Amino acid sequence: MEAIASLMNPASVAVIGASGDASKTAGRPVAYLQKHGFTGHIFPVNPRYQEINGVPCYKDIASLPHAPDVAVVLLGAERAHLAVRELASRGTKAAVVLASGYAETGEEGVRRQRELMDAAGTMRLLGPNTIGLVNVTDRIMLSASGALEMEHFPVGKIGIVSQSGGILGAILSRAAASGIGLSKLVSTSNEVDLDMADFVDYLVDDASTSVIALYMESVRNPGKFRAAALRAAAAGKPVVVFKIGRSESGARSAVSHTGALAGSDRMYDALFAQTGVTRVQTFSDLLDVPNVLATGRKLAGKRVAILTSTGGAGTLVADSLGVSGFDTPAPDGETAAALRALQSGDHAVLDRNPIDVTLAGLQPDLLRGAIRILLDSPTYDAVSIIVGSSALAMPDLMAGAIRDSMPDTDKPVIAFVSPHAPHVAKILNRDGIPAFTSPESASSALAALSRHTQAAACVDVQHSEPVAMPGAKWEDLPRGSLNEAQAKELFARFGLPCARERVVTTAEEAVAAAHEFDAKVVLKILSSTITHKSDVGGVAVGLTAENVGTRLKKMRDDVETATGERPSAFLVQEQVSNGTELILGLHKDPLGTAVLLGMGGVTAELFKDTTMRLVDRASGLSLDEAHAMIRELKTWPLLNGYRGRQKPDVDALASAIVAFSQMAVSLGDTLIEAEINPIFVLAEGQGVRAADGVAVLAD
Amino acid sequence: MEAIASLMNPASVAVIGASGDASKTAGRPVAYLQKHGFTGHIFPVNPRYQEINGVPCYKDIASLPHAPDVAVVLLGAERAHLAVRELASRGTKAAVVLASGYAETGEEGVRRQRELMDAAGTMRLLGPNTIGLVNVTDRIMLSASGALEMEHFPVGKIGIVSQSGGILGAILSRAAASGIGLSKLVSTSNEVDLDMADFVDYLVDDASTSVIALYMESVRNPGKFRAAALRAAAAGKPVVVFKIGRSESGARSAVSHTGALAGSDRMYDALFAQTGVTRVQTFSDLLDVPNVLATGRKLAGKRVAILTSTGGAGTLVADSLGVSGFDTPAPDGETAAALRALQSGDHAVLDRNPIDVTLAGLQPDLLRGAIRILLDSPTYDAVSIIVGSSALAMPDLMAGAIRDSMPDTDKPVIAFVSPHAPHVAKILNRDGIPAFTSPESASSALAALSRHTQAAACVDVQHSEPVAMPGAKWEDLPRGSLNEAQAKELFARFGLPCARERVVTTAEEAVAAAHEFDAKVVLKILSSTITHKSDVGGVAVGLTAENVGTRLKKMRDDVETATGERPSAFLVQEQVSNGTELILGLHKDPLGTAVLLGMGGVTAELFKDTTMRLVDRASGLSLDEAHAMIRELKTWPLLNGYRGRQKPDVDALASAIVAFSQMAVSLGDTLIEAEINPIFVLAEGQGVRAADGVAVLAD
Repeated sequence: MEAIASLMNPASVAVIGASGDASKTAGRPVAYLQKHGFTGHIFPVNPRYQEINGVPCYKDIASLPHAPDVAVVLLGAERAHLAVRELASRGTKAAVVLASGYAETGEEGVRRQRELMDAAGTMRLLGPNTIGLVNVTDRIMLSASGALEMEHFPVGKIGIVSQSGGILGAILSRAAASGIGLSKLVSTSNEVDLDMADFVDYLVDDASTSVIALYMESVRNPGKFRAAALRAAAAGKPVVVFKIGRSESGARSAVSHTGALAGSDRMYDALFAQTGVTRVQTFSDLLDVPNVLATGRKLAGKRVAILTSTGGAGTLVADSLGVSGFDTPAPDGETAAALRALQSGDHAVLDRNPIDVTLAGLQPDLLRGAIRILLDSPTYDAVSIIVGSSALAMPDLMAGAIRDSMPDTDKPVIAFVSPHAPHVAKILNRDGIPAFTSPESASSALAALSRHTQAAACVDVQHSEPVAMPGAKWEDLPRGSLNEAQAKELFARFGLPCARERVVTTAEEAVAAAHEFDAKVVLKILSSTITHKSDVGGVAVGLTAENVGTRLKKMRDDVETATGERPSAFLVQEQVSNGTELILGLHKDPLGTAVLLGMGGVTAELFKDTTMRLVDRASGLSLDEAHAMIRELKTWPLLNGYRGRQKPDVDALASAIVAFSQMAVSLGDTLIEAEINPIFVLAEGQGVRAADGVAVLAD
Repeated sequence: MEAIASLMNPASVAVIGASGDASKTAGRPVAYLQKHGFTGHIFPVNPRYQEINGVPCYKDIASLPHAPDVAVVLLGAERAHLAVRELASRGTKAAVVLASGYAETGEEGVRRQRELMDAAGTMRLLGPNTIGLVNVTDRIMLSASGALEMEHFPVGKIGIVSQSGGILGAILSRAAASGIGLSKLVSTSNEVDLDMADFVDYLVDDASTSVIALYMESVRNPGKFRAAALRAAAAGKPVVVFKIGRSESGARSAVSHTGALAGSDRMYDALFAQTGVTRVQTFSDLLDVPNVLATGRKLAGKRVAILTSTGGAGTLVADSLGVSGFDTPAPDGETAAALRALQSGDHAVLDRNPIDVTLAGLQPDLLRGAIRILLDSPTYDAVSIIVGSSALAMPDLMAGAIRDSMPDTDKPVIAFVSPHAPHVAKILNRDGIPAFTSPESASSALAALSRHTQAAACVDVQHSEPVAMPGAKWEDLPRGSLNEAQAKELFARFGLPCARERVVTTAEEAVAAAHEFDAKVVLKILSSTITHKSDVGGVAVGLTAENVGTRLKKMRDDVETATGERPSAFLVQEQVSNGTELILGLHKDPLGTAVLLGMGGVTAELFKDTTMRLVDRASGLSLDEAHAMIRELKTWPLLNGYRGRQKPDVDALASAIVAFSQMAVSLGDTLIEAEINPIFVLAEGQGVRAADGVAVLAD
């Protein structure tokens, strides 16, 4: 953290390989530090110059008058490690390495990257392949981004961490162009040392940052990221992420770009859900959503008033809000009467929503009055104001009226501005009124604000009481692929209820088992090698004590015919009926281990109706998390008494999910695979039954 | 059509209520006609002026030297009809009425609108509540849109029809700002006479238009729209629509805005699917998608090369393309070798996709060479070029290299331009290279081009052979709510296979029927008033000849207890098993009558897995259309031998859909309701069986 604090607020900066030619990339960092008003010491290092931009230039690192707080290394990948080694030995706290040509380019690059890390020793590194960092709050630019050619950047509360340097420049430019204020920006890129999680952690403590926005390609250290994101949630600072790698082809591109190993994209959804991170799906939302969250306002409900001076755009915004689940109700009687009392133009439509002040739109008093009335109305939770083309001529008219109304309300107020009036959007954003030039962004931002308000109002599921870990023993079980009986033995030891069953080897034993259960039974061959038992005639259902013996003999012959192997053991299992079928499984990938819950049955399978949660190493999932998973299923109504059906035992299912997660935690890397398919959820009070399952334990 | 031709190319234009004050809306039309170079006669009419902008002004319509071709009426709603009456009586071909205050405002407005229509007589009207029309091709502006303050508009091949005036101005401004060329724009708004379909029809024949883009709130005359859209499809001119009213709240706003009665949004999807219209889901796509379609290029496959000089943006575009179903494969060996032979910079990544020319990106020869190689490569169907921030300094460098490469290829080439380099996007669009500033728009546009290429390559489903209408008699059936047996009698007469059944009144008859079917049977009460038969104990399944008699007696008692009414008739029905359950129904709304096909079962119901087609009045749906509906179901794999299951008889299902549609056509307005739920699809070759159904016939 101290190193990051130095990077953000250095007293002195050495620029290794600085050029006196401002048109070159190597000429930029010194020029940008000066141009934006850095007040500390700048030490350019380059044997070819005596001075750069009026600052004395040093021939090498050894010649520096004292160790710089931080260094920006502009040398190529062939030489950067030499400078890094020298800087480290002089006691520099942190270095920023801009060169590319490392792990992102192939094997030779991986070698260079290792060399660079070795050279740094205990000195902290940002990069390589980074465009650097920008402290907008204090106007300190440790970056070569061409976006810094601009004179002014609006200062605000949004801190940005990007794993791509090019994207950082794009965000910086876009924020400046639309008047959205930022606090800190950093590009972490190859992350040989300082990574995204480190900077999230820093921004949680940064008083000038209230929202954290991330451009993510992959998370290298999920545990560290998780901890940082949870700290942000606890501090009430929303984290918004745009993550690429959503499709296979995008993921491939992300991996080749940064050389990082990515987990499956759905695992990231689980990670974000568990840490309260808001994921956005378009790049522009990565600024637009934080922009509305940075106002700190709460959105208590779903009812939005739209005030417009142009019918078409109002309809566009209403339509987009509707698609996002918002309602745009007409004004209540009192509100409509108050609007009419403003005596606006003849054809103004004031008793519908959008509230259309077409003809009167250009009178500031009327505008202020209308906005005030809508903000005061109990019918609305938020107000969206359309700034149409009429604002082109008088950009500050609408902006002024909105600005004047802001102190009187806690409700969110946003503006939709014609895409051809960007300067009006800029004025509004600078005044702290989030302004959008696409209806979809406005809706996304309000939707994110609504979710964030709700999440903040709820008890955080992360904090719900962990369930005590069972002291289950499992070490005596065999290793490798377990057969069905062994797998269920494992599940049962962790408290997962399984259908009653007996392992039998003869027809007589099968009959005895069926008598014991006094119910219809299922007969299956018991094998750890044959996975598709029914394909070889190894499953029969609906049997009774009367016919199970005969059926066993036939099955033994059938399976021998099909596989060439005569089965020696069978499972007689109580047949479970009238339950709802689900799947409970493990998913492992670079991001961690997750519990997967899925609705059973072929139709649900076609709709991929599944949800996942990463398993916390310490205690497994909590009951609240398990219930949240169940409610996330698209077919959740089937588990909730859909159309008067009997309710299944959802509490027992939640307990089973927790038990399954605790098994995963207890066995750790020993558990390579585990799946219960199906697990039947019986009627309320009757629990669940694991009916079939597999498990593979490492040797 | 002649009236529209006059509106687009008038020899003379009267402007009724013209003002000499250019800052007022009423001052704009004359000023804009002059400013943009209209060469015909302009007749301003206003008793308060002698001349306006150097043109003689007339005190009233009667004083005009001759009847104008067209008139723009700027008077308010209180007086516009008076001018319209005079214009009509002088023989004016068409008038554009800009005033608002008509049907969009309420009852008094509806009355005014009727008055206006009466006043027009046989003269054609555009509006009221319109912003007018713009013939960009010939620079003729019959509009008061403030967007026309701009000096120049790029001329292109995209014709726009909007039902909102404000939106028209927004499109015009946005097109000009991004260099996208347009041909004609018209705002139809209240559509008392000329409507959207009329202008689509005109644009189909307009040689300067190759793509038609529509901003739609509702279709007032579905038959006319359908005919116009099909003419466009036959002429090879893509029609792209952005339709609002997607959500209930958006629909309410659309209705209040134009006073039109809208159909349900899903019916519009059916209409668009049946007429080859491409629906876009964001407003910006309404220009971006036509922009790529207007190139006339074909997209033969899904493989896109991304050439970039900035890693981050390339990844962003790759990710978005992946989400839209495109693939971004690495270059094949030969292509990679050719790229390497260009001898670009050290760390350029040329054997992956995005193809990253980071360091060498600023050399025009290399750029041209790289583009050429990718266009020649058999690995790619299209090339997407990223124009990063480096283009800011030299906007024409990249544009020039791309432009030079265009004549050598038929493959689509698009550009993604940093949002902060809009002038580069403008240059590219003017050169005919579609340029996008959001990755999502680029993907949407390529996806639309891909769909359009495929649709053009297929035989149009609209043109498939109609099935001969059955000469079924139905007039003898009772009216009102039919009971189940009567409903199935109706279905059967139109060739819909129904499960075998007998109406019985006694236990003995029930037993006889069960014997006749020699199968398990279902017993139900027969009633046209009790709709939820199972709720009152009126359904029993799995019966045999042995127990159906006893069961009937019990059912008679149970139903009497539950309803107070003793049932007199029952249905004994052969029980259908092992079929896939579907639903076949009618949906009627302002847009027309549609056949709805849905997957049965509670899970599919939760996912709303249904599809619809509007029924052509003449011949019902074709078999091709029926097959297209079946394949549109998300659970289509269940009907297509999913995971080795037996294939259901899809051909028989398609025939049933056609038969059902022909029943709807034959009965027309007499058929108020009809639904078969469920219809079982049996194994291939065994047909379908309607198992239950309702029908309501008008008296």
